[in-house]
Amino acid sequence: MDIIVLSHEATEEDIRHIIKRLESWNLRINLSQGTERTIIGVIGDTSKVTEEEEDSIKAAPGVENVFRILKPYKLASREFRKETTEIDVRGVIIGGKKVPVMAGPCAVENMTVLASIADKVKAAGASFLRGGAYKPRTSPYSFQGLGEEGLKHLAQARDRTGLPIVTEIMDPRDLEVISEYADIIQIGARNMQNFRLLLEVGTSDKPVLLKRGLSSTIKEWLMSAEYIMSRGNQNVMLCERGIRTFETATRNTLDLSAVPVLKQLTHLPVVVDPSHGVGKRDLVAPMAKAAIAAGADALMIEVHTNPEEAMSDGDQSLKPEQFEKMMRELRPVAEAVGREL
Amino acid sequence: MDIIVLSHEATEEDIRHIIKRLESWNLRINLSQGTERTIIGVIGDTSKVTEEEEDSIKAAPGVENVFRILKPYKLASREFRKETTEIDVRGVIIGGKKVPVMAGPCAVENMTVLASIADKVKAAGASFLRGGAYKPRTSPYSFQGLGEEGLKHLAQARDRTGLPIVTEIMDPRDLEVISEYADIIQIGARNMQNFRLLLEVGTSDKPVLLKRGLSSTIKEWLMSAEYIMSRGNQNVMLCERGIRTFETATRNTLDLSAVPVLKQLTHLPVVVDPSHGVGKRDLVAPMAKAAIAAGADALMIEVHTNPEEAMSDGDQSLKPEQFEKMMRELRPVAEAVGREL
Amino acid sequence: MDIIVLSHEATEEDIRHIIKRLESWNLRINLSQGTERTIIGVIGDTSKVTEEEEDSIKAAPGVENVFRILKPYKLASREFRKETTEIDVRGVIIGGKKVPVMAGPCAVENMTVLASIADKVKAAGASFLRGGAYKPRTSPYSFQGLGEEGLKHLAQARDRTGLPIVTEIMDPRDLEVISEYADIIQIGARNMQNFRLLLEVGTSDKPVLLKRGLSSTIKEWLMSAEYIMSRGNQNVMLCERGIRTFETATRNTLDLSAVPVLKQLTHLPVVVDPSHGVGKRDLVAPMAKAAIAAGADALMIEVHTNPEEAMSDGDQSLKPEQFEKMMRELRPVAEAVGREL
Amino acid sequence: MDIIVLSHEATEEDIRHIIKRLESWNLRINLSQGTERTIIGVIGDTSKVTEEEEDSIKAAPGVENVFRILKPYKLASREFRKETTEIDVRGVIIGGKKVPVMAGPCAVENMTVLASIADKVKAAGASFLRGGAYKPRTSPYSFQGLGEEGLKHLAQARDRTGLPIVTEIMDPRDLEVISEYADIIQIGARNMQNFRLLLEVGTSDKPVLLKRGLSSTIKEWLMSAEYIMSRGNQNVMLCERGIRTFETATRNTLDLSAVPVLKQLTHLPVVVDPSHGVGKRDLVAPMAKAAIAAGADALMIEVHTNPEEAMSDGDQSLKPEQFEKMMRELRPVAEAVGREL
Repeated sequence: MDIIVLSHEATEEDIRHIIKRLESWNLRINLSQGTERTIIGVIGDTSKVTEEEEDSIKAAPGVENVFRILKPYKLASREFRKETTEIDVRGVIIGGKKVPVMAGPCAVENMTVLASIADKVKAAGASFLRGGAYKPRTSPYSFQGLGEEGLKHLAQARDRTGLPIVTEIMDPRDLEVISEYADIIQIGARNMQNFRLLLEVGTSDKPVLLKRGLSSTIKEWLMSAEYIMSRGNQNVMLCERGIRTFETATRNTLDLSAVPVLKQLTHLPVVVDPSHGVGKRDLVAPMAKAAIAAGADALMIEVHTNPEEAMSDGDQSLKPEQFEKMMRELRPVAEAVGREL
Repeated sequence: MDIIVLSHEATEEDIRHIIKRLESWNLRINLSQGTERTIIGVIGDTSKVTEEEEDSIKAAPGVENVFRILKPYKLASREFRKETTEIDVRGVIIGGKKVPVMAGPCAVENMTVLASIADKVKAAGASFLRGGAYKPRTSPYSFQGLGEEGLKHLAQARDRTGLPIVTEIMDPRDLEVISEYADIIQIGARNMQNFRLLLEVGTSDKPVLLKRGLSSTIKEWLMSAEYIMSRGNQNVMLCERGIRTFETATRNTLDLSAVPVLKQLTHLPVVVDPSHGVGKRDLVAPMAKAAIAAGADALMIEVHTNPEEAMSDGDQSLKPEQFEKMMRELRPVAEAVGREL
Repeated sequence: MDIIVLSHEATEEDIRHIIKRLESWNLRINLSQGTERTIIGVIGDTSKVTEEEEDSIKAAPGVENVFRILKPYKLASREFRKETTEIDVRGVIIGGKKVPVMAGPCAVENMTVLASIADKVKAAGASFLRGGAYKPRTSPYSFQGLGEEGLKHLAQARDRTGLPIVTEIMDPRDLEVISEYADIIQIGARNMQNFRLLLEVGTSDKPVLLKRGLSSTIKEWLMSAEYIMSRGNQNVMLCERGIRTFETATRNTLDLSAVPVLKQLTHLPVVVDPSHGVGKRDLVAPMAKAAIAAGADALMIEVHTNPEEAMSDGDQSLKPEQFEKMMRELRPVAEAVGREL
Repeated sequence: MDIIVLSHEATEEDIRHIIKRLESWNLRINLSQGTERTIIGVIGDTSKVTEEEEDSIKAAPGVENVFRILKPYKLASREFRKETTEIDVRGVIIGGKKVPVMAGPCAVENMTVLASIADKVKAAGASFLRGGAYKPRTSPYSFQGLGEEGLKHLAQARDRTGLPIVTEIMDPRDLEVISEYADIIQIGARNMQNFRLLLEVGTSDKPVLLKRGLSSTIKEWLMSAEYIMSRGNQNVMLCERGIRTFETATRNTLDLSAVPVLKQLTHLPVVVDPSHGVGKRDLVAPMAKAAIAAGADALMIEVHTNPEEAMSDGDQSLKPEQFEKMMRELRPVAEAVGREL
């Protein structure tokens, strides 16, 4: 809370009251009495002013508006740390010159299918295997994932291919078991503001891939990263996966401008998931290229050997041969913007 | 999945393949071959077709679009149960002729303040005391609630006033302790699709107030109610509290049309929270009146004796005298639409 | 432009440059140099600072953000005129204690149907007849309205019933002919920012009903009213008709909170059109009640004797008997909030 | 209107009534009576069914929903014309292998500034000069453009540089004078559904650049293109320039997924305007690269020699040296996706 705009009707008494309050927090003020509005500029370290203190100023008599100038996140901000964070996962760097690709099925279904997909994405150049063992589903009657069995399959696929694995957590009670297997823990879009879950993974030493909520602003997203980081875990990457808008031609609206915006605001690496962003197989490759051109540090892509029989999100999964073709097309784009695939 | 539209390029082979698939699920089909598109109407009990089976049809070669006709929720649907569910909480009915009002502070701060607020909302005619002991906050540096101490204060306020209490759960691990104290368990907007939490409260015998997610469609909201109900707990009420839109004049956009829409789709009672919906004290009373006129079964209102010192959301809390005035104004509106306050 | 926030990297040179600029516009400044940001408070009559001058400050080196405190509209603001404007249309007042209802078909189809509808809405208590002679349609292949013939039918229906008429303008070239017949000229949602059309009706002496654009903020809407008023026509009423959001259960999302927000910001009367807002017949009556409870000064309702054969928007039109029933139900609601129907 | 879903309560009488209606339009039907719903598949050339006829079916007793399968636009559809339309403007092709760049100031201010900008964008490789003579501005008190004088400056700049010019039309009455000067006529976002203006430019022989409305779906956008084409003018290009969402970090949300979606649905060339899409200078270059990677056929970029003194949108204008740098960076990206700059 750094600028306080007083309403027309604010009295001298109102102003004195606010100033007294600010001074009790060791802040100094700078009063601008204009012809139509009085403005209080707040001087000093306002970063220690809490949300509730800010709310109390908003609620004070005579106050029309409060503008907060300082960013409400610190650890996540580019001002806190100038250079982009490089996260090293079993030797693969996220946030460096190379743009690693995380690929695999939406949900882990069985070992045979997973092994086959893992082999193929590895051959096409993927650096990580993704796959869900615990699945958030809109309907209670849908397949909810294999649970620990799915984690075991993922670990086995990692043994087989050498690809580190990314998998989702939905419940703080699952952190222990997931940590046994996963290399990167994913927080899904619907849990971006599941604050207890954020705090829990904040105590972990595993890197966290934090997906953007369907209707979350970039600021709220960074606040959720701050939750994790405030508990000690600094290895957070942010994954854009589409926001909810009025447009129905795509499943969501992939907000690629979030990539350069994040590059200005934060030192955390930025991942893009075009599969969930657009929800349609044919649109994945062009948006993957655009993501790299916009500056993404990594990609997450759904691949399935038999999309038609996938137990979740088959409609947006690439077939291995489509994935392989896309990977070939991505290489020159990465080079054109000074990166490598 | 009830209607399948085939694309221009669908082959005879594609069509046979889909029909075979549907028949393996004991469904019959009705083929309409138009001049430009072929349409497959699916006949039989498609309610057993899972989301992943539907996805697999969407992903099949030759398929352009799939329209699902049946609602994906059952227990929550008005077709499943014709008459509105009446939820009895310590003798107060939600879903009946009377429109109970749930009032109190956003967060429980200390016993003195809570007792004072409880006394005043009781005197003005409130039927429930609301207050958060566990608070979801955007920032990790903000006040996160008093936890069990807050629950104890709420119980003490209930002893004092006789008002049953409504309080929020954020973590499945807190269900036991919250159940000891609460009369209604609230699921907040940010947790509307925290599916593990939904399943957990589904095993409870406490009524659940399920807030709408900031960007959730009415259908998704009903699916989340279905999650709870599928576990056995049928006492679910739905609380509209504003959706996220482009408009910034209000904190959220209170979607009052959701009230009559829900009245058609579901038998569950509908609560409206205008305080969070608009986020500004002066707008609460007109929107509370509008909510009742639109058919709401109950209201949830934030009240604080000293909004300026509230530890959360002071900007939108009514002062007791404003609350009392609003209650007086609501009575004739309730009567005008055949209800009582 | 009233508060200028400078970035971290702003130099003394940058600051001097901005100050010099502001002083050239006869503004004084108040410098707050905080530990992390420097803030310039602008003092003097900033209302003469144009949008482009504000833009130029935003684009100046060292500037991070500019907050404009004063409202960009004047004639439309509640500060400019304290009491609500009452618009007298052939003796019917909009903006007074009585809440007039404007009813009729979406489009004028022929004299027989129009006469029948006009008689029935008159009998049920409507104060205006609405009907489109020039229709904005999404498709070039749809019925575009009868044009001047439709205006003649409307005038004839007015002669018959005494109801003043409301009809839409789409093209500045039609102002002359429409003015011959209409009592209120409507600007549709899609033309809310058709600035040339706004300027044109601003020169007219007919009252203007300005619908809110599908994705217009309340501020932009008031700026469009200002366009009309800046040309001399002060008889503007604002009509909320639903905004575009992600929700698909209703045609649009009727933003009723706009009603009390507008009541604070402007002296212009506020009309609500629930028919377009929800797009479904069954939802019109509850939302009409809610609109009055929220403080609307008038309602606009679509009515058709044979909705099934309506040439436009039949899905949301009430039948005369439904309209009559709604009018009966609205009366007690109006009385409950100190109004009359 | 191709599939009609009947409600639970539809009677035999209702069904007969609908069938009779469809048959009167020379359509045949295919009835699917399921256990819970009856579905009518419509067979025959439904493209002649008008919007109002479709509405009348929606409004018929017993009808729950109507799904339209065929696209409501024809001339604009990829099915109507397989190969991408190439628009030749004074020898520069839009829609071919080369990706031309349209650059220049938001508004034309005076000849000196315009000449200087034109020279510089030409030198950096732009193929068109853009600049507004008639400017849509939110406020009636802002600079509205130089009008015909601005058009003359543009023509003079074309004589000087050889760059064809793109300029906006706001009023059908200006078509004649604008046609004298412009090479491409632009329809701005706010006028995308100004249907009279669309019909007017549809009679012109000048190519039209149709910007997407702030809250327009891709389908509505194509319907607006259809308006123009239905009058004879087939040279329409579609320009994505950002949609309105809840995110405030950027001015709008640039929907780049619209590019591959349009490539599937239409043969019309697709232009992207990242300057308006993001509204901040620093974000323009990354989004321009992303646009080309996603498949854009042309770019539109704001450039100003002195953004700080620009009379409109200075905040998002590149300086000539920034534009020149961006052009250099775009070349390898274009080549990486098989195009040329």
